[in-house]
Order: sequence, then structure tokens, then C-alpha cells
Amino acid sequence: MDGKLGKKYLKNYFAKTDPLFQKYLRSKVSESRKQGYITGEVIRKFSEVARLGKKIRGSLVTIGYQLSGGKLDKNIFDTSLFVELFHAGVLVHDDIQDRAGYRRGVVSVHEHFKKVGKSLGVLIDTNHYGLSMALDAGISAYYYSWEKLLSSNFTAESKVRAGKIYADFIQRVSDGQTLDITGMSIRKIKEVDVLKVLRLKTAEYTGVMPLLIGAVLAGETSKKRLLNLEKYGLAFGWAFQIQDDYLGIFGDEVEVGKPVGSDISEGKLTLFMLHLMKTGSNEQVKFMRKVLGNPNIGDREVKRMRKILIDAGTRDYVLKKGWKYVDEGKKYIPLITKDKKMQELLESLIVYMMERTL
Amino acid sequence: MDGKLGKKYLKNYFAKTDPLFQKYLRSKVSESRKQGYITGEVIRKFSEVARLGKKIRGSLVTIGYQLSGGKLDKNIFDTSLFVELFHAGVLVHDDIQDRAGYRRGVVSVHEHFKKVGKSLGVLIDTNHYGLSMALDAGISAYYYSWEKLLSSNFTAESKVRAGKIYADFIQRVSDGQTLDITGMSIRKIKEVDVLKVLRLKTAEYTGVMPLLIGAVLAGETSKKRLLNLEKYGLAFGWAFQIQDDYLGIFGDEVEVGKPVGSDISEGKLTLFMLHLMKTGSNEQVKFMRKVLGNPNIGDREVKRMRKILIDAGTRDYVLKKGWKYVDEGKKYIPLITKDKKMQELLESLIVYMMERTL
Repeated sequence: MDGKLGKKYLKNYFAKTDPLFQKYLRSKVSESRKQGYITGEVIRKFSEVARLGKKIRGSLVTIGYQLSGGKLDKNIFDTSLFVELFHAGVLVHDDIQDRAGYRRGVVSVHEHFKKVGKSLGVLIDTNHYGLSMALDAGISAYYYSWEKLLSSNFTAESKVRAGKIYADFIQRVSDGQTLDITGMSIRKIKEVDVLKVLRLKTAEYTGVMPLLIGAVLAGETSKKRLLNLEKYGLAFGWAFQIQDDYLGIFGDEVEVGKPVGSDISEGKLTLFMLHLMKTGSNEQVKFMRKVLGNPNIGDREVKRMRKILIDAGTRDYVLKKGWKYVDEGKKYIPLITKDKKMQELLESLIVYMMERTL
Repeated sequence: MDGKLGKKYLKNYFAKTDPLFQKYLRSKVSESRKQGYITGEVIRKFSEVARLGKKIRGSLVTIGYQLSGGKLDKNIFDTSLFVELFHAGVLVHDDIQDRAGYRRGVVSVHEHFKKVGKSLGVLIDTNHYGLSMALDAGISAYYYSWEKLLSSNFTAESKVRAGKIYADFIQRVSDGQTLDITGMSIRKIKEVDVLKVLRLKTAEYTGVMPLLIGAVLAGETSKKRLLNLEKYGLAFGWAFQIQDDYLGIFGDEVEVGKPVGSDISEGKLTLFMLHLMKTGSNEQVKFMRKVLGNPNIGDREVKRMRKILIDAGTRDYVLKKGWKYVDEGKKYIPLITKDKKMQELLESLIVYMMERTL
């Protein structure tokens, strides 16, 4: 089984939800435009970034929904976008923290408003103006997300159950971010911290949360099924993160939507760096320490870093680990559903997480 | 009728909710402490700021609840804290944007983590580290707030209704903040913008939202009552804001919890500044423009600014306007409730908004 079926599902999800997403985002832009030019601009720029997401998390909501007997219709497609609204918001905030200039192939929100500030003639530091606007965009996004979830056509009980799961997971995302930034800022790579960050920020949030929420929106009551879904989701999330980090170092700039090597220059702590630190030669580790979190590195350093990761066997080791998560996730599929088609979908989707190039 | 009864209600609310608030915040600190030292510290520092609030918004939730027939019990006291969690979070974010060093008499969150970053030996700019931690603290707070609301012992329907109102109002708070910062950054005081900011950021959010949510949690269905509540709340919010701005210029440093003149040096746009600009002499306006948003001003400039506002009649004009809002709000009281005691409470509370010294 390859990842084609999974890829197709994601593509179909995007096609089905994009018009709904655009319509919603447009309505939000025009609401904010009524308050003033700049408020409209903040939401317009946010919308641009939001729309460009791969929408993997939104897709997992509809899959969780289907697995618990829900039928795909406009209501679940529309509602599932709540997680994409949150996700776009938290990326805007992440980009402030990581000082990232690009996101999803376009200029990041805070970077954009730095320029807007300049053209408006703000009398304060334009960096600070830019981040202030991006901060507001993220806050709006969080509350759009809640509006989307709570305004949907599900029973109030289902919505409250879903909302409680949502609130719970995001608190841990925030903790994960705090650990991540602190680790990056000190540039200390402690295994226990790196694993914790990846689990909190991605594996649980990206893999587990949307599946559980989808199931709950379909009225799922079986604790056993939710538990198996959680286990599949966790393996899914790890595979997703490993490939994400792989693409962040080895991926194509255009497809990934971020400048080559930006994960390295931002000092992102990944399993790749962790493995190299434990197994690399003194010279290799020394080079890694020199470039990690160094905003001044260029193509040459990125290429050498890549070569080191290949030579040291790190690339293969971590990718193998990713595929182990794929195998781990597959084990839970028969426990989640007896439906052959859904089983195939779950299998192909987790495989696709490691096959994807963007 | 003076503000004593209102003051007493707020005091009682604080006494009743403080143990619940502390217990909740402590549980959140220990959850985050499990993830790591720094995550625990972020929530601990946030809790310190959160606890020190006057809790006017939380009190309005219980009043709205009582007005629609709800009886005060632990459930509503506890639930009403959702708005205080949000409020503390948004203040943490505001303080990043305004570069405010103090909040509620203690060092602001981002300022605190600047020092923590230094002691941890972070390799990035400590200002940036501090704001990154404060950004996370605010995000956590927003999701605590949702957890608090959705985990309460009300019907799922009431919670969804309350949540929809909450999500709706906060989107406008965010717009208001965007307008406010942009106005302050350009240092242009346009009447229409100033009024819009005050309405979105305070009058609606502080005055109207908590009353409506309280009413909805009590199962209020009368549109007419909700409308009158809204009108009272709006007047309440304006009175609150005017006195807030008054205290920010003329208030006592210790009681207000911010350094004298910080509203001036941060460039806060208020009705005071708006009125002076329209009615002051060239010299007075010139001085105002010089000090507003100027971080280097000291006691001397603050004192002169105060004197100008008094001499130009601005202080009296704006305070009178505040009292007009009190009168306006009072008109709706008989339309909201026939209960004499509740009527007295509503009257005293709105009066207290203009009488308070902190």
C-alpha cells in the first residue's frame, strides 16, 4: 500500500473545503474592514496565509467523523475548518517568535506589517509594529476557530465535548512552544526536551486531537475506539513531524514554502540534530553547533549540514524511525474500524505522511 | 445613591472567587510544571498577574446571571472566572504591544521573562525571549478561559450560546486593539477612531459581554431584556473607560498599579486627549503632542500635562461626560428588572465606576 489514496483524500478535502474557507475568510475580512482600513488589512493578510495550508488537520477531523459513522456533508467539512483557523493563527504567532520571514511561500504576517508600518509612517520601531499586528491576527484567528466550532450544526453536547478536547490539547501546544523556544534560545539539545516538544506541539495536536474531535462530533461513545484512535493518531503525528523536519532540511524550497535551510538557521530542534549530536564525530557536532540557530548561514553551510547528516547516517536513521511509526500506527487500524475502505484510507494516509514532498 | 453598594458587591465577588481562582491557577501551574521548569514558570508568573485583577468583568457575569433569575452558587462564581482568565491573557498580550513594564503593580510578564532569559543564558535578544514567553502565556490563558466556560455545570445549550457571544465579542476586541495600536503608532488622534477603539476594546467587551453571558447562562430568552441589558452595559462600559483613562493620568500610582504617566508615555488615545486637541490652545496641543507616546518623559512633564488638562477644562468636560453615561445607564435599569434590590445594585455599580480610585 502506498500513499496515493491518502494523498487523494487530502486533495479532495482541500477542494471541498477551499470554497467554504474562502467564503468564511472573506466574510471576516469585510467585517473587520468595516472597523477601519488597517483592521481589514490584518485579516486580509491573515486570510492569505490561512488559505495556503495543506489542511492535514482538517482532513483528520473528517476522517475521525467518518470512522465513527458520520457521513461527509457540508456541515462537517465546514466545521472541520475550525482547526485550520487555529493552526493558521498559531503559525502567525510562531513566526513572530521564530522571526520567520516566510510562511507557506508568502511573506509572514509580522514581516508584511513591518512594511505596512513603514508606508503608514508609524513613529515606533516597524519591527514592533509588525509583530503587534501579527499578534492581533493570531488572537482573531483563535476566536474565529471557536466561532466556527460552536456555530456548527451539531448538538450542543457534541460541540461542548469537542470544545473541551480542543481547549485541553491547545494548552499543551502552548507549553510545548515554551519548551521549544527556550531550548532553541539556549541552544541546548536535551533528548527528553526535544521529544517532549515534538509530542506536545505536533504528535498529539496534529495527529490525535483532530481525529478525536471528529469522532466526538459524530457522537462517538466507545472509550476503546477513542483510545485506539489516539494511538493511531500519535504514530501518525510522529511520522508527520519526522517528515516535516526532513523536508525542512532536505526539501525543495518551492514546495516547502520556506527558504532553504531556514529550519537550521532558526535553530529548530529535531530528531536529526539530536541523533547527530549523540552519534556524530566531534567535528560534525561542532559544525552543527555553529550553524544551528545562526541567522547568517547561507547555501554553502546548508549543503554541508545536509552532507554531514547523510554521512553520519542520521538521515537514514531518522527516516527509518519515521517508517517505524508508520508500522506502529498501522497496528491499530483493525481495532478502529472493520470497514475495509476506511482501513485502506488510514493505512495509505499514514504512509503518505512519510512519502510527501510538501 | 452612591457607589458603596456596588463596591461592596465587587468586594464580595472577589472574596468568593479568589479561593476558586487560586485553586484553578495552582492546578494549571502544576500541570505545566510537569512539562518542564520553564513552562511552570510561565504559568506561575501569569497566575500572579491574573490574581491581582479587580474582577469587574467577572462580577458582571454573576450580576447578569442574577438578573435573569440565577441564584449565586459556586458553579456561577467559578464559571464567571472564564472572563478573568481571558482578560489577564489579553493584558499580557497588550503589555507586549505597549511595551508596558508594569501591570497591576507587578512587573509585566514579558519584562519578567527578559530577566529570566538573561539568567538562563539565552543566546537570543532577551527582549525577544521575554515577549515570546508572554505570547505563550496569553495563548494558554485564552484556552484556560474556554476550558473554564465549557467545563462548567450548565446545560450544553447554555454553554454554546455563551461561547458564541464570547467568540463574537473578542473578535471585535482584537480589531479594536489593531486600530488602537495603529493610531498610537502614527500618533494621529482621529475622533472617529478613538471612539471606535473605546467602544470595541472596552465599552462592549467590559460592559456588555459579561452581562449578556451571565444572562444566557441563566437561560435568559427575552430578547427585550437582553437588549436593555446591552444598553445598560454599554453606558457602564463607557463610564468605566472614562474613569480608567482619568485614573491613568490623574490617579495614584500605587492604587492604579502602573507608574505615573505611563498612559501618557505609552501614547494612550483617550477622550481627554481628543478633547484637548479640539479645544486647547496651540501651545497646549503642541505640548500634548510632544509628550504623548514619548517614553522619555518624567514627573515634570506629567505634572504639566495634568495642569494643562485642568486649565483647558478638559478634565471636567470628560468627567462630566462619564457622569452622563451613568445617567444614561440608569434609564435602562427599570426595564431590566423589577427587583428593587437588583435595581439598587445596578445603580450603585454604575455610579461606582465613576467614583472608584483604583
